[in-house]
Amino acid sequence: MKSQNLGSGVVRSDLEMSDGRTIRYYDSKGQVRSAKDLREKEEQPGIGELRLDPLVNEWVVMASHRQSRVFLPPKELCPLCPTTSELLTEIPDSNYEVVVFDNRSPALRAPIGDWALPDLVGPDTDAGTAAGKCEVICFTDSHGGSFKDLSERQVLTLLEAWKDRTRELSKLPYIEHIAPFENRGEEVGVTLSHPHSQIYAYSYIPARVEKMLSAAQDYNLSTGKVLFDDVVAREIRDGERVIAKNEHWIAFVPYAARYSFEIHLAPLTPVADLSELSDEASAAFPSIALEITRRLDGVFGIEMAYIATWHQAPVREGRDLLRLHWQITSVRRAPGKLKYLAGSESSMGAFIMDLRPEQSAEQLRQVKL
Amino acid sequence: MKSQNLGSGVVRSDLEMSDGRTIRYYDSKGQVRSAKDLREKEEQPGIGELRLDPLVNEWVVMASHRQSRVFLPPKELCPLCPTTSELLTEIPDSNYEVVVFDNRSPALRAPIGDWALPDLVGPDTDAGTAAGKCEVICFTDSHGGSFKDLSERQVLTLLEAWKDRTRELSKLPYIEHIAPFENRGEEVGVTLSHPHSQIYAYSYIPARVEKMLSAAQDYNLSTGKVLFDDVVAREIRDGERVIAKNEHWIAFVPYAARYSFEIHLAPLTPVADLSELSDEASAAFPSIALEITRRLDGVFGIEMAYIATWHQAPVREGRDLLRLHWQITSVRRAPGKLKYLAGSESSMGAFIMDLRPEQSAEQLRQVKL
Repeated sequence: MKSQNLGSGVVRSDLEMSDGRTIRYYDSKGQVRSAKDLREKEEQPGIGELRLDPLVNEWVVMASHRQSRVFLPPKELCPLCPTTSELLTEIPDSNYEVVVFDNRSPALRAPIGDWALPDLVGPDTDAGTAAGKCEVICFTDSHGGSFKDLSERQVLTLLEAWKDRTRELSKLPYIEHIAPFENRGEEVGVTLSHPHSQIYAYSYIPARVEKMLSAAQDYNLSTGKVLFDDVVAREIRDGERVIAKNEHWIAFVPYAARYSFEIHLAPLTPVADLSELSDEASAAFPSIALEITRRLDGVFGIEMAYIATWHQAPVREGRDLLRLHWQITSVRRAPGKLKYLAGSESSMGAFIMDLRPEQSAEQLRQVKL
Repeated sequence: MKSQNLGSGVVRSDLEMSDGRTIRYYDSKGQVRSAKDLREKEEQPGIGELRLDPLVNEWVVMASHRQSRVFLPPKELCPLCPTTSELLTEIPDSNYEVVVFDNRSPALRAPIGDWALPDLVGPDTDAGTAAGKCEVICFTDSHGGSFKDLSERQVLTLLEAWKDRTRELSKLPYIEHIAPFENRGEEVGVTLSHPHSQIYAYSYIPARVEKMLSAAQDYNLSTGKVLFDDVVAREIRDGERVIAKNEHWIAFVPYAARYSFEIHLAPLTPVADLSELSDEASAAFPSIALEITRRLDGVFGIEMAYIATWHQAPVREGRDLLRLHWQITSVRRAPGKLKYLAGSESSMGAFIMDLRPEQSAEQLRQVKL
């Protein structure tokens, strides 16, 4: 076992899993982790392929080995619960606070040997290997738990894990962008109901980030300013879409939200990524993160399906142009009604929003906590 | 009533609906249409707002008046069935082949007076009005029908209607791009189960088309060639992803497909949009369109949810750089399993594909028709 002290009193302990993957325990109470993974050794899946869609110059990851991944197993076979006398799971210990390990069916994997992205030359572009990392972050050992039901202490430990992973993955030469996200609810395709966060660390700049970078560069060229800072300044000035605020963070429904319930949470002192968050900003995150996710579930009094993603600056590019923020989008537009990406959104990239963002913000603010 | 002869023996007859909208009947057997709309006059919905998402410079349509639109009415209240003695529907006649009329809850509407898109200046960009047209195309009066169950004659009439709408909408000064599409299945958010196609005619170039145009421009600058033509040439050369072909059309699973079942159908003589299709290419469309949609339903022996979109060149830009093609994407990846756009796809624009496109093409080819 290898241990290291992180911020906010969190200790990380690394252990090896039986198939060679590393499991990292992030603990806040000085726990000692030594439980052995008693499962049979299992063969590692192969690496996927990167293919260029030349019509839009976007990489698509071909990961056919994922088609047969575990799909909504019953609670008693949940691989993200702690190990018990009945079931050996991904987590060898009998309890945990936060653990991080490589996805067992990863879309992206560490490449073997030298690695480079193929040159973009339209339909003649070579296929590449799907280099990168896909990690799973379990943040509660309670199968029926939920992010919004965590304690502030638990959220802080999770935040330290996200920061640690961002720092460490940034050092890998083949990683260009790191996106920690949580998919919640079968409505967004969750295949394991035990609540968990994931990290996709890409060997290329994903299409949306590339577009954000290009808009930020254009804006900086014409105004000398940082686009995201001006976006936050406008939200503060307008005020009517702000739903929560503390000394270090502000949460708002963006002016041009695409989903009936979409919330952005931004630090008031802008930083490029999680690794740059100050101790003060970190300490102020749990209360507002819990407040906004509780407000979201409060709107209709049901568990809202959502995608919650950390937008960060890429590892090597645009570090002074793109800013850290947390984006939560829900596919629910009303009880019993979901927002689908159909013809206009999916084929044309043209979003139709069914609710005024100001009205959405008002509904979120009115939730009694 | 106003009548005109279109191609392929199709006659279009225009009648006024009680709220002032026009209903256009497209008929192949010389029918005379005169049924009056007997419904009460209804107030027209207001026009929505266009807001710029400055982080990516994309317009989002704010159409809050759509939130209360009709949602999955039972068959006996279907507004897209022909009118009967029991129910006055959107179609006053007691039968129809193909009809086209403005959507009753349109996301985009004709603007009143002068109209212009606001200048893009980051977060300070003014809101615009959501100018454009949203039309509904009903292509069978059978409530339980389906595109794949149409006769070739019916598909040809529908194609003439799509061509006619493209020609006519292209003349409106505020229309920049025209996208006919069909959403099929509740899995992609269909709110009216009666099969129908739609047209979104945008007053701006939608984000995805803008990106396709930019890639086509770059490719043309560096090679002097048209990108899409080279994409089709590569598919013909590779052969292994081709699933159907005739003298005028070729259907393939694209090399970098994003969905387990994604089919592109392209004319072998490239054109910018539907209005430029020759009579010969038009006549050859129904058989291959029916073949590929039947193959799609044949893969798992179930009705596959899909989005089928005509990609066209914009009305005024890139006419010699972008090419007409029909894209069908299904969200189904296996019986009982759907593809969802979650963290990676939705937040990052980075698609993970679960099936090799070559394997998908093989499955589609093996379907016995």
